[in-house]
Amino acid sequence: MKEKMEELKNRIMPNGKAMILAYDQGFEHGPRDFLVHPECGNFKHILDIAQKGKFSGLVLHAGLAEKYADEIADSGVPLILKLNGKSELFTEEDPFSPQLYTVEDAITLGAIAVGYTVYSGSKYENEMLREFSKIVREAHSNGMMAIGWMYPRGKAIFDRKSSSKTLKIALDEQAQTNQAIDETPSIVAYGARIGLELGADMVKVKYTGSPDSFRWVVQSAHPTRVVLSGGPKTNTDEEFLSRVKDVMDAGATGIAVGRNVWQRSDPLSISNKLHQLIYGD
Amino acid sequence: MKEKMEELKNRIMPNGKAMILAYDQGFEHGPRDFLVHPECGNFKHILDIAQKGKFSGLVLHAGLAEKYADEIADSGVPLILKLNGKSELFTEEDPFSPQLYTVEDAITLGAIAVGYTVYSGSKYENEMLREFSKIVREAHSNGMMAIGWMYPRGKAIFDRKSSSKTLKIALDEQAQTNQAIDETPSIVAYGARIGLELGADMVKVKYTGSPDSFRWVVQSAHPTRVVLSGGPKTNTDEEFLSRVKDVMDAGATGIAVGRNVWQRSDPLSISNKLHQLIYGD
Amino acid sequence: MKEKMEELKNRIMPNGKAMILAYDQGFEHGPRDFLVHPECGNFKHILDIAQKGKFSGLVLHAGLAEKYADEIADSGVPLILKLNGKSELFTEEDPFSPQLYTVEDAITLGAIAVGYTVYSGSKYENEMLREFSKIVREAHSNGMMAIGWMYPRGKAIFDRKSSSKTLKIALDEQAQTNQAIDETPSIVAYGARIGLELGADMVKVKYTGSPDSFRWVVQSAHPTRVVLSGGPKTNTDEEFLSRVKDVMDAGATGIAVGRNVWQRSDPLSISNKLHQLIYGD
Amino acid sequence: MKEKMEELKNRIMPNGKAMILAYDQGFEHGPRDFLVHPECGNFKHILDIAQKGKFSGLVLHAGLAEKYADEIADSGVPLILKLNGKSELFTEEDPFSPQLYTVEDAITLGAIAVGYTVYSGSKYENEMLREFSKIVREAHSNGMMAIGWMYPRGKAIFDRKSSSKTLKIALDEQAQTNQAIDETPSIVAYGARIGLELGADMVKVKYTGSPDSFRWVVQSAHPTRVVLSGGPKTNTDEEFLSRVKDVMDAGATGIAVGRNVWQRSDPLSISNKLHQLIYGD
Amino acid sequence: MKEKMEELKNRIMPNGKAMILAYDQGFEHGPRDFLVHPECGNFKHILDIAQKGKFSGLVLHAGLAEKYADEIADSGVPLILKLNGKSELFTEEDPFSPQLYTVEDAITLGAIAVGYTVYSGSKYENEMLREFSKIVREAHSNGMMAIGWMYPRGKAIFDRKSSSKTLKIALDEQAQTNQAIDETPSIVAYGARIGLELGADMVKVKYTGSPDSFRWVVQSAHPTRVVLSGGPKTNTDEEFLSRVKDVMDAGATGIAVGRNVWQRSDPLSISNKLHQLIYGD
Repeated sequence: MKEKMEELKNRIMPNGKAMILAYDQGFEHGPRDFLVHPECGNFKHILDIAQKGKFSGLVLHAGLAEKYADEIADSGVPLILKLNGKSELFTEEDPFSPQLYTVEDAITLGAIAVGYTVYSGSKYENEMLREFSKIVREAHSNGMMAIGWMYPRGKAIFDRKSSSKTLKIALDEQAQTNQAIDETPSIVAYGARIGLELGADMVKVKYTGSPDSFRWVVQSAHPTRVVLSGGPKTNTDEEFLSRVKDVMDAGATGIAVGRNVWQRSDPLSISNKLHQLIYGD
Repeated sequence: MKEKMEELKNRIMPNGKAMILAYDQGFEHGPRDFLVHPECGNFKHILDIAQKGKFSGLVLHAGLAEKYADEIADSGVPLILKLNGKSELFTEEDPFSPQLYTVEDAITLGAIAVGYTVYSGSKYENEMLREFSKIVREAHSNGMMAIGWMYPRGKAIFDRKSSSKTLKIALDEQAQTNQAIDETPSIVAYGARIGLELGADMVKVKYTGSPDSFRWVVQSAHPTRVVLSGGPKTNTDEEFLSRVKDVMDAGATGIAVGRNVWQRSDPLSISNKLHQLIYGD
Repeated sequence: MKEKMEELKNRIMPNGKAMILAYDQGFEHGPRDFLVHPECGNFKHILDIAQKGKFSGLVLHAGLAEKYADEIADSGVPLILKLNGKSELFTEEDPFSPQLYTVEDAITLGAIAVGYTVYSGSKYENEMLREFSKIVREAHSNGMMAIGWMYPRGKAIFDRKSSSKTLKIALDEQAQTNQAIDETPSIVAYGARIGLELGADMVKVKYTGSPDSFRWVVQSAHPTRVVLSGGPKTNTDEEFLSRVKDVMDAGATGIAVGRNVWQRSDPLSISNKLHQLIYGD
Repeated sequence: MKEKMEELKNRIMPNGKAMILAYDQGFEHGPRDFLVHPECGNFKHILDIAQKGKFSGLVLHAGLAEKYADEIADSGVPLILKLNGKSELFTEEDPFSPQLYTVEDAITLGAIAVGYTVYSGSKYENEMLREFSKIVREAHSNGMMAIGWMYPRGKAIFDRKSSSKTLKIALDEQAQTNQAIDETPSIVAYGARIGLELGADMVKVKYTGSPDSFRWVVQSAHPTRVVLSGGPKTNTDEEFLSRVKDVMDAGATGIAVGRNVWQRSDPLSISNKLHQLIYGD
Repeated sequence: MKEKMEELKNRIMPNGKAMILAYDQGFEHGPRDFLVHPECGNFKHILDIAQKGKFSGLVLHAGLAEKYADEIADSGVPLILKLNGKSELFTEEDPFSPQLYTVEDAITLGAIAVGYTVYSGSKYENEMLREFSKIVREAHSNGMMAIGWMYPRGKAIFDRKSSSKTLKIALDEQAQTNQAIDETPSIVAYGARIGLELGADMVKVKYTGSPDSFRWVVQSAHPTRVVLSGGPKTNTDEEFLSRVKDVMDAGATGIAVGRNVWQRSDPLSISNKLHQLIYGD
């Protein structure tokens, strides 16, 4: 099992670095994310980007994974099945994203890693901790990687009501930097740490605003690997590339990006620049 | 399994088109739907319409499927078992329709496809996403089609309270067209997309008011097939037929219709016209 | 299995008619129902009525079924195990009656049919629909009959708040007849229909006030059999017998009665009259 | 299985009478119950009372049952494992006591009977009815006795809000006797009846104030056996002994007592007097 | 199994005494606990302390246990897997800490004992009682020790609303000593007792302020072993050592300590002093 795990890790993280393309937005945000230009909603176009852009992983839900199983297999791009998800049609202050597929489903669908979002700080945190900790156990007993989307979020965090000492520190950080509370170093580092404590092999987190603060995130998760969440499309390529450079300098393993690639007019151009930054080639 | 799936798909979608008769209204609405004329409540009459009207599928709950198993088998009309349902006696702003039978039950009852309603936007969305995603996995592992009744609905949608960007776009659409919010292109397309993301083979959705907007729905679900939900009886045959023509022009695979056939005085006449529109014969 | 089912149906419904004695009131109402006269609480007396009164079924909970298993077997009266129940000590506007025993328990206890109450219209409807639909599947796969106590009830019905069109019709009916809302034809017929849709072999429902309206109930449930729920003891024998005559005229299969038999001073006398009405002998 | 059951019943009820020592108060009330005198908290002292006082059963939770398994086996006192429990630290108007061990655990721990508390009237009644009914089935299929602690309790009962007819009768009884509502004959008899309906072999109930009213309880539970719950220590030995005499005269099978024995200064003296009253020796 | 249990107990409690190092704070409090000095967040440093400080157990969550499995095995320090946990990001008056791993997971990860926190007094007490009682059964059937973190906590306790007699006594104690309510002897002793009643082999509790009151805790849990929870770093070494001396004098089995060791500037120095106090060497 260990050997299998190492081999699969090398596929998701060639040379120890990861460059992952996320395409679960059709579920999480709806087709509105594809309005920018017509090709965004064309899966074959996305797969083409993943392959030609030399991404080391592609994140999908079961539907696309299954319907394009042959094309994905042919592309050689490693498949990461996202095991939980929700639509934005129902939104609650305390978010919950339910597990929809099992590790066994992921194997059947040809995935070599699984992903799961944990909204720590939500009142449903306990359900997500339960599901993700179980998923990690199951993934590892099958020699698969488990990746945590670690996004602290919920009423307790945004309403500043929590008696949590971590939140108090985060509010101090916010007072200095004017960041969103869920992008403060303390909150992001805590989310990353929960990933480590539960056994995640990799965590996907938000940017904390500076390489120094992101280094604290990387340390808090160590030896779990940290990748940057791409987030909404930035105004310019440079803005995004500069952020990626920051996190790589801070010890990150790479990125998991969607809109900042496929919503751009030239997705392969930015993919190449990202590849250069991450792999130094 | 793939061959079996293809064979069954050809039965539900001969020549790639589907014309499905729905008869789950006795559960969802109660016997009041049969008050129009006495034969509406006579299942043998309904089965006769399905057979003579050359429908490619008949949607039932377990009770009728089981009690008329021999007659259904003799009719040659493919059976689609609706796996969830609720009465209209209990109604809540956030609807929930619980799974009542399993894929295994559907097989035992002679069905070749299963259906399930997902009310995205309801606070129970997470339970329905869980149930449907599991049903899709089970159906596919048995070589059966899974059809999603994708109806975004619930307090978050009707109260305009949601922070969802999709809803904001839908409200803009509504301002222009005066449509019900759950019939706006953005909402219907999102519902259809969720069906694809979860792996549905076909989704049943509401009409969006125009061929152009319905094309967006079809694209958002692609390669999952889209059928029009018939809805309440229209004033005239023409009104309904014109709507069906619109969706076929927009790339729809067909229709799933009940009241607009069996509540009419001459159900076979409209069935023949629908068949002509859908199959072009 | 089909043959076994037919044989058992013939025992519960000799000549296609059913006359069932219910004795689950000790649980549902408590011992107060036995205060009328001392023998009401004596199970051997009840069993004696069932046997000498030629009832075709006896409804019990697991306790009495098990403790008097030998006596019941000797009596030859078919046992129907009621699978759910609740006390009246906790009462809520939206009732819920949880499943307490399984179909397998029923078989072990010597029952040849199972019963379950569905309170459609309650906010717990979904849980009861789930439990009953599963029970029906299990009963049938064991060649046993499943009987639904179909009692629409709950805040949505009694508070007139529901947006249900069925309820609107029921309120019109009520305006004319002054009936309790849960005894209006539309509500009773809907309850009966749900039984059919879920696959029940027989439903037990309230009286709707007239043979004509009860015929609508029988039609709505067809081919599921309909039996009248006895309800509280009427003032006179005649009042009850006249009601039974009405439902038999309307196409009912028979009755499921408790207090109107064993709370009377001469239970065998009324049993004989009922037998005559139902079996025409 | 029947023979095994009979043999075990003879151990718990030698000569058809039961004298059971309860020692679950450390969990239900906490160590404060042991403050009266130091030995109350010494389990070996308690076991000594059980043995020398010739008790026919000892009620324990899993912890003591397991840690003193050898001593209990050597004592020859039959072990009754209490399967549910809760602390008094969290108290709610509607009590719930969750199942903590299984019937299989009870067997492993050397118990020959299992106990479970049902708070009928609580809004959690449905969960407790479910758990207890399942426990009874499992106990019986293993040839073990199932004993119900039947204590109607909860907001519906104490707030007089219930629409239950039983409660109305109970309030009339209370008006005459000034008893606590959950000690009125109607409430206690209903609790006992629920035990019978679910299949309990024995129920433990509160005293109703008089032999006549307690006889109603015994009749309502028949043929399930009824034992008196000892309750808090009475002021004098005589007060408690007189109560026990009353219930034995009313047809009770015996008692299940804790504090009224081991909180007394001479527990063996009262044990002997109880033995005399119950077994008439 | 008994022999295996004895052998493992001897490893966790050499000479009958336990000195356990806790390192689950990264999950429970977040990385802020590591800010004191950089090495606090370095697991190899922590493991070094555990080994050189001669700790008889190390408490971890699954992530670190798995990622450093080889190093932990090499160190010879017995592993205790903490089976439940939560972050401080979501905080509620009534705390709940969900089970995240199973006893089987613990075995796979090389643990020889399992831990679980029970917040008695929380409205989720019933869920935690259920989980912990099941864990104890499973641990024992695998010859493993089960350790309870027994922390009464929740709205009922802090709001003084409870009708619990134990709480009334605790409020009297508080009036005299000015302690936090959850550190009063009655509350701590009750928590410890619940551990015994459920079958825990060891309980971890807060300090009650004096050796005499702590003796009551030890007696209430007997024969379950009691260890002191280290809690936040005290101002001086002496303050902490004096507390440890008190509990050892009161009959405690040892301590489970984290921050009071690894947050100090010289963790090995205090470890040696603790070892001397506990083992008397």
